[in-house]
Amino acid sequence: MTRFVTFSIDGKRGYGLARDGGLVDLSARHGARWPSLRAAIADGALGQLAEAAYSLSPDMPLDAIRYEIPVPDAEKIICVGVNFPDRNAEYRDGQAAPTKPSLFIRFARSFVGHGEALVRPSESVQLDYEGEIVLVIGKAGRRIREAEALGHVAALSLCNEGTLRDWARHAKFNVTQGKNFDGSGSMGPWLIPFTGEGQIADIALETRVNGEVRQRDRTSRMIFSFRNIISYISTFTTLVPGDVIVTGTPTGAGARLDPPVWLKPGDVIDVEAEGLGTLRNTVIDEEADLA
Amino acid sequence: MTRFVTFSIDGKRGYGLARDGGLVDLSARHGARWPSLRAAIADGALGQLAEAAYSLSPDMPLDAIRYEIPVPDAEKIICVGVNFPDRNAEYRDGQAAPTKPSLFIRFARSFVGHGEALVRPSESVQLDYEGEIVLVIGKAGRRIREAEALGHVAALSLCNEGTLRDWARHAKFNVTQGKNFDGSGSMGPWLIPFTGEGQIADIALETRVNGEVRQRDRTSRMIFSFRNIISYISTFTTLVPGDVIVTGTPTGAGARLDPPVWLKPGDVIDVEAEGLGTLRNTVIDEEADLA
Repeated sequence: MTRFVTFSIDGKRGYGLARDGGLVDLSARHGARWPSLRAAIADGALGQLAEAAYSLSPDMPLDAIRYEIPVPDAEKIICVGVNFPDRNAEYRDGQAAPTKPSLFIRFARSFVGHGEALVRPSESVQLDYEGEIVLVIGKAGRRIREAEALGHVAALSLCNEGTLRDWARHAKFNVTQGKNFDGSGSMGPWLIPFTGEGQIADIALETRVNGEVRQRDRTSRMIFSFRNIISYISTFTTLVPGDVIVTGTPTGAGARLDPPVWLKPGDVIDVEAEGLGTLRNTVIDEEADLA
Repeated sequence: MTRFVTFSIDGKRGYGLARDGGLVDLSARHGARWPSLRAAIADGALGQLAEAAYSLSPDMPLDAIRYEIPVPDAEKIICVGVNFPDRNAEYRDGQAAPTKPSLFIRFARSFVGHGEALVRPSESVQLDYEGEIVLVIGKAGRRIREAEALGHVAALSLCNEGTLRDWARHAKFNVTQGKNFDGSGSMGPWLIPFTGEGQIADIALETRVNGEVRQRDRTSRMIFSFRNIISYISTFTTLVPGDVIVTGTPTGAGARLDPPVWLKPGDVIDVEAEGLGTLRNTVIDEEADLA
């Protein structure tokens, strides 16, 4: 499995290829040409980078790096709301299933990388998980047809689309504030190059909290398919290389348990999908910083 | 009035100072140090740039440039929904006025500059205007107190927060898609350095369509004040220099007329506020591009 990682060491950001024996630092060798994975994606260079890396020995053990989110400089991070069966019913508002995807935006700073702690802010105890599959766009396009949609995908990843539930309901419309607390979600651990529809058409997606399965479904059951999501979004906005699409979460978030169960400091959350690995994070309380 | 402009000539982007006699090209002189107005803002250099420019003669007439949106490389563009009296009532859903601002995100590519045409896409005829005042952040902060909030503002501008109304209602929550059609809104014409609360505390904001006044109100009547908006947003996300906050529109959008009146090709829309100038745009139909 080819795994591209955006990482930092002592606050300095780079990118590389993760292997069993450690990390091959690609930014040290190719950073002048491709300053980030986004730049490499835009240049269609992931294949070339992977090939070059496999003839090299790892530069450092994987535990020497901090994982950053895979595309920290994405122009857009677009998230799909309700997108698995039963998730719509969880809202218990008597409304029919939606015919168009609900979309919202997150800023890169609302995410931490693999292995980092999700931040529970002082303003809310309602931190909740949402395990999701991430598409990273490789080829620009507007009004992309569903038949062509997957040709615009460069890579895949995972997301824990952490949400402050009460803040997501602050306003009449729009969940923006509940979805954008700094460091409240995570993405990663890495980018897996996209090789074809079979890689994602019917894979298991699972979220565990302290080892207990909370969400489990298969991508074949998504209400809005990967193809449909790309086509729909590109109807209104031009997708460009590095754009990140977070494709929706199965039923079973903590908000829907009765009574609700929120994440708390020390919890360990795993988001796992077949062929994409496991994104693991803990939770910490944010230190009060009201200055 | 000091007016900083982001512009392009033959597709090459720069920034400068607009004077009655023309444009002083600042990027030609200072681009190595400050590649964009955002960079100058982050460095607290607007005052220095203005001072240097006033001893120089204009390099070109203003009609030689195309206006770009003032901060095309902003990390975030955050928009406030319902924020003037009667606007909540316009929704006619019997709900009380909101106690927290409704927030949504727009991408830079959803805006064109002053003098450019708003794009009515082939998917909708429901293009509507929303005249708004724009704050540009100069000093980073998180959990900014209202008392300190205006100290984080570097500059002001105007926005026509053009919306495809039917697409804003596609989903159960979130207006993302109706607010993000490429080129459907505008921002500008320029940045006016922020000098103090008196500059914005009680100014008239007006939107005209083909010379007819459609929206007119005063900032002193905003439901959520400029101070409150900055403080609230910074509760969840760190504001950084160049961040753009679009602060909400008065009653009178075309969707609320009975029957609704949508913008059509050839219309001329002016958004004007005291001391900030007039943002003018026309409307064109997008050429069908379904490839």
